[in-house]
Amino acid sequence: MNAQQNFVIGIDYGTDSVRSVLVNTDGKQLAEAVHYYTRWKDGLYCKPTQNQFRHHPLDYLEGLENTLKEVLDSVDDEVAAQVKGIAVDTTGSTPVAVDKTGTPLALKENYAENPNAMFILWKDHTAVEEAEEITDLARSWNGPDYTKYVGGIYSSEWFWAKILHTLRNDDTIREAAYSWVELCDWIPYTLTGGDDIHEMKRSRCAAGHKAMWHEEFDGLPSKEYLGQLDPELADLRDRLFTDTYTSDQSAGTLSKEWAEELSLSEDVVVAVGAFDAHMGAVGGEIEPYYLSRVMGTSTCDILVAPYEDVQDNLVQGICGQVDGSVIPGMVGLEAGQSAFGDVYAWFRDIILGPFTELVEKSDLLSDEHKEALIEEAEEKMIPLLSKQAAAIEEVDTGVVALDWLNGRRTPDANQLLKGAIEGLDLGTDAARIFKALVEATCFGAKAIVERFRDEGIKIEGIIGLGGVAKKAPFVMQTLANVLDMPIKIAKSDQVCATGAAMFAATAAGLFDDVTAAKQSMGNGFGEIYEPEADKAKKYKGLYEQYQTLGQTVEERIARKIQAVKK
Amino acid sequence: MNAQQNFVIGIDYGTDSVRSVLVNTDGKQLAEAVHYYTRWKDGLYCKPTQNQFRHHPLDYLEGLENTLKEVLDSVDDEVAAQVKGIAVDTTGSTPVAVDKTGTPLALKENYAENPNAMFILWKDHTAVEEAEEITDLARSWNGPDYTKYVGGIYSSEWFWAKILHTLRNDDTIREAAYSWVELCDWIPYTLTGGDDIHEMKRSRCAAGHKAMWHEEFDGLPSKEYLGQLDPELADLRDRLFTDTYTSDQSAGTLSKEWAEELSLSEDVVVAVGAFDAHMGAVGGEIEPYYLSRVMGTSTCDILVAPYEDVQDNLVQGICGQVDGSVIPGMVGLEAGQSAFGDVYAWFRDIILGPFTELVEKSDLLSDEHKEALIEEAEEKMIPLLSKQAAAIEEVDTGVVALDWLNGRRTPDANQLLKGAIEGLDLGTDAARIFKALVEATCFGAKAIVERFRDEGIKIEGIIGLGGVAKKAPFVMQTLANVLDMPIKIAKSDQVCATGAAMFAATAAGLFDDVTAAKQSMGNGFGEIYEPEADKAKKYKGLYEQYQTLGQTVEERIARKIQAVKK
Repeated sequence: MNAQQNFVIGIDYGTDSVRSVLVNTDGKQLAEAVHYYTRWKDGLYCKPTQNQFRHHPLDYLEGLENTLKEVLDSVDDEVAAQVKGIAVDTTGSTPVAVDKTGTPLALKENYAENPNAMFILWKDHTAVEEAEEITDLARSWNGPDYTKYVGGIYSSEWFWAKILHTLRNDDTIREAAYSWVELCDWIPYTLTGGDDIHEMKRSRCAAGHKAMWHEEFDGLPSKEYLGQLDPELADLRDRLFTDTYTSDQSAGTLSKEWAEELSLSEDVVVAVGAFDAHMGAVGGEIEPYYLSRVMGTSTCDILVAPYEDVQDNLVQGICGQVDGSVIPGMVGLEAGQSAFGDVYAWFRDIILGPFTELVEKSDLLSDEHKEALIEEAEEKMIPLLSKQAAAIEEVDTGVVALDWLNGRRTPDANQLLKGAIEGLDLGTDAARIFKALVEATCFGAKAIVERFRDEGIKIEGIIGLGGVAKKAPFVMQTLANVLDMPIKIAKSDQVCATGAAMFAATAAGLFDDVTAAKQSMGNGFGEIYEPEADKAKKYKGLYEQYQTLGQTVEERIARKIQAVKK
Repeated sequence: MNAQQNFVIGIDYGTDSVRSVLVNTDGKQLAEAVHYYTRWKDGLYCKPTQNQFRHHPLDYLEGLENTLKEVLDSVDDEVAAQVKGIAVDTTGSTPVAVDKTGTPLALKENYAENPNAMFILWKDHTAVEEAEEITDLARSWNGPDYTKYVGGIYSSEWFWAKILHTLRNDDTIREAAYSWVELCDWIPYTLTGGDDIHEMKRSRCAAGHKAMWHEEFDGLPSKEYLGQLDPELADLRDRLFTDTYTSDQSAGTLSKEWAEELSLSEDVVVAVGAFDAHMGAVGGEIEPYYLSRVMGTSTCDILVAPYEDVQDNLVQGICGQVDGSVIPGMVGLEAGQSAFGDVYAWFRDIILGPFTELVEKSDLLSDEHKEALIEEAEEKMIPLLSKQAAAIEEVDTGVVALDWLNGRRTPDANQLLKGAIEGLDLGTDAARIFKALVEATCFGAKAIVERFRDEGIKIEGIIGLGGVAKKAPFVMQTLANVLDMPIKIAKSDQVCATGAAMFAATAAGLFDDVTAAKQSMGNGFGEIYEPEADKAKKYKGLYEQYQTLGQTVEERIARKIQAVKK
């Protein structure tokens, strides 16, 4: 080992698990550990049919301790001694109600089992009505349109909608919540031993994309605006924050307790946190005007552009454009699909649900065989369907699907939209439905690309990151064909955690800026999916069918809602 | 045994199997036998993705011999000696090309493997374009609208469309086909030893509902009309038929060969054949203005009304109204759904397809266990889904489906329509999709009931017959709720074969007419499904959603076809 090497740790909080990596400043990974949230795995605190998805803070804390200990245990003590920085990325918007010390309410005895006292996961859509109200007020009141930097439509997936929904539906939280924090702010705060919420360094990325924070507004939306939504929101504003920070900055150093627990130095710098896709884009070596897509259960699409190019161009219907949310000094534009891999997993589960119940109830097999068979089916179902779908010769089988099974994030957020499958006949088999669902998710991606272009933002290339990008060649080839563009897949399996490590190294002063860190620590690209010309041409026609179907579904749902309101 | 008892045999040709029953004139069943078509079971001669479904005549002949021998072997010789009549019902329209002796071409060496020389099953939709052409010509030419007694739209499921499609696509058949016959005519012809096609007694039921035969037209459509479709069709008319017969009439007596083969008397009367739903309606003890629904893979809905009541009322968009097609002396009105149980089986197979492949490829189980598990799954899947769906409390889960997976037979035949499932989200499970599919098939039934009523035909009750009626209480309860009418289920498991036995007894002179036979031989009703008021009310709202979805799908498919034509 080179005694002069420095090391950093990147921590990536996902939907199902948290992962930590320990890397050197050349980007070489020395250790990796993953922890699956135990309460989440058991389905606790969630109501999928009502789109309620919550994470208990203990799932996060256990994951933090377990993965950090595991990566540090698996390297030499000399390496551990040279760890200079830690950075954290997380899903988002994933807010939680906290007390004055910044402690999530679910960590307090009285609220330990209350889902409203837990982190409200990005994909929780319980706040659809509140999001609509926030948008409507921003458009109609006598003040600035606070949605202007977040695409013009406020989403139920975001900070204020979730807070407003919780305040209105749970008086115990309304009374007990001193403030609210994002997961990406709470983890660095925890690591640095924070105990005063007003000292918490808030992420520019989270605040700008999800909380309508902008310098033009002197920070968060005004008390007057918030008060019209709910008087408690206006009061809350004073207990939130004014300043925000980019992730090349330090949030502080490791607390004594954590340093002891992990046998690390108290000098280890903890960077300001940010969202997974934003740090992931850096980990995936984003360049200006490349669309970096983290493709997992959902997608988060990130584009960076020089400030001068886009400062006067407000892109409609995306998840916002925030100065410094990805690379300090550039504007990060965010878009994304509410469900991507989740669409395939949904269809897998449509088959696995009855499969599992039949196998479990069968008298033919031993319990051991049942369990093994179900496990095997869970693992092999999507690869099997992908293989069968890839073997279908026709591009247009007549089956057309809509990918809005978790609503639509962009373009033009609308969480009330639903998925659909049309063109079914008695010859339609599971593979044809799966193919149509994969195509639907790719058409959803195309709708985002088209929106950027329609709004004058060029897209010069596509970078694929995340689990689906790495593991699903059929999906990636379909995406290349649908977009009629090559897809470059980042080589690293842990692009978000690697991106976090780049910010850790920058915040710790090991590089001048994150661009330098990216150049030194990036792992480059592996697979490149090239579009197949004949299929790409046919998909242009199928995309029109997808759009037509989407339009009628959107109109029908709008009419249905109108009718209910009347 | 009472020495003076008489016995009759009813034979029911279904889609997957043929069944014979031997009953006495009180309707008591003494023996029953079923034969599953072996070639069909192996999927031979069919292309499901192209909607091509064919039956080899050997499947029918083997089933005829096997089931007749089995029922006769299982009763005393004294019973066999007192068998007085045999009648046959079959699916339809199920035509086949024959030579001058009435032999289906597939029974001749040169055509034994040619699907176009086989029976074209009712659900074969290869002739969609030809059906449209037949309708268009009937509406536009300078002669009678031959579709006026068949609902105004000629279907691809019917006689002329299938013939025209075959003639145009297979020159070998065009040259070799002397005439064409329906299955329900060919079986009695075979049993009576027919060897001259011009002597075949054709069924009023088949001719009237499917071949546009009507007294007003002096029989079949004119040579002039047929010639405009294809000169060969005009020539063919002379080699078809002029007269038709109701099924209370004799088609002849058992041939010497069959009498010897079966050890029956040559005096046994063989009745003129008819379609399964029509004889089934009689077996299910239909009354005037009751809708008798045979609910199996598809449905056939039969209503009878006094001639005077409906002679001047041409019901649009149904499968025709034919004097004597059900009960001689009354008009039989036919409607139906192209897919009913097939919709549930389709969804079962969506799950079973990947299930089977995964189990078959697994290293965990022995071949024996695999086979047993797959068989168990096939058997238990629909009951499992039904149970789960019945346990869902909400009537409106947000999921809405269209039942047109095999096109739409009535109201307003359109075989180009497709199925759809909308309102899907990540919380939608297999049970919710299954529930929506069941509801869709019930909404399809409601659309038929509404059409009859809109056209001035009252419906005083619903009689449920067939496999789904007997075995699927969840479907029947949903149907009662959707229609907001009670459903009476006929007690007999073999209502079509029993109906055939009633015609056999009538044709053999054991009763004065079929109404008397019905009164003596009917088995009455068992289960009655009463509508649940609260659900019935909610389904009225859901039915509107079904209609809206159907309308947009129909418009979209029409536009797509227009675009292709351009």
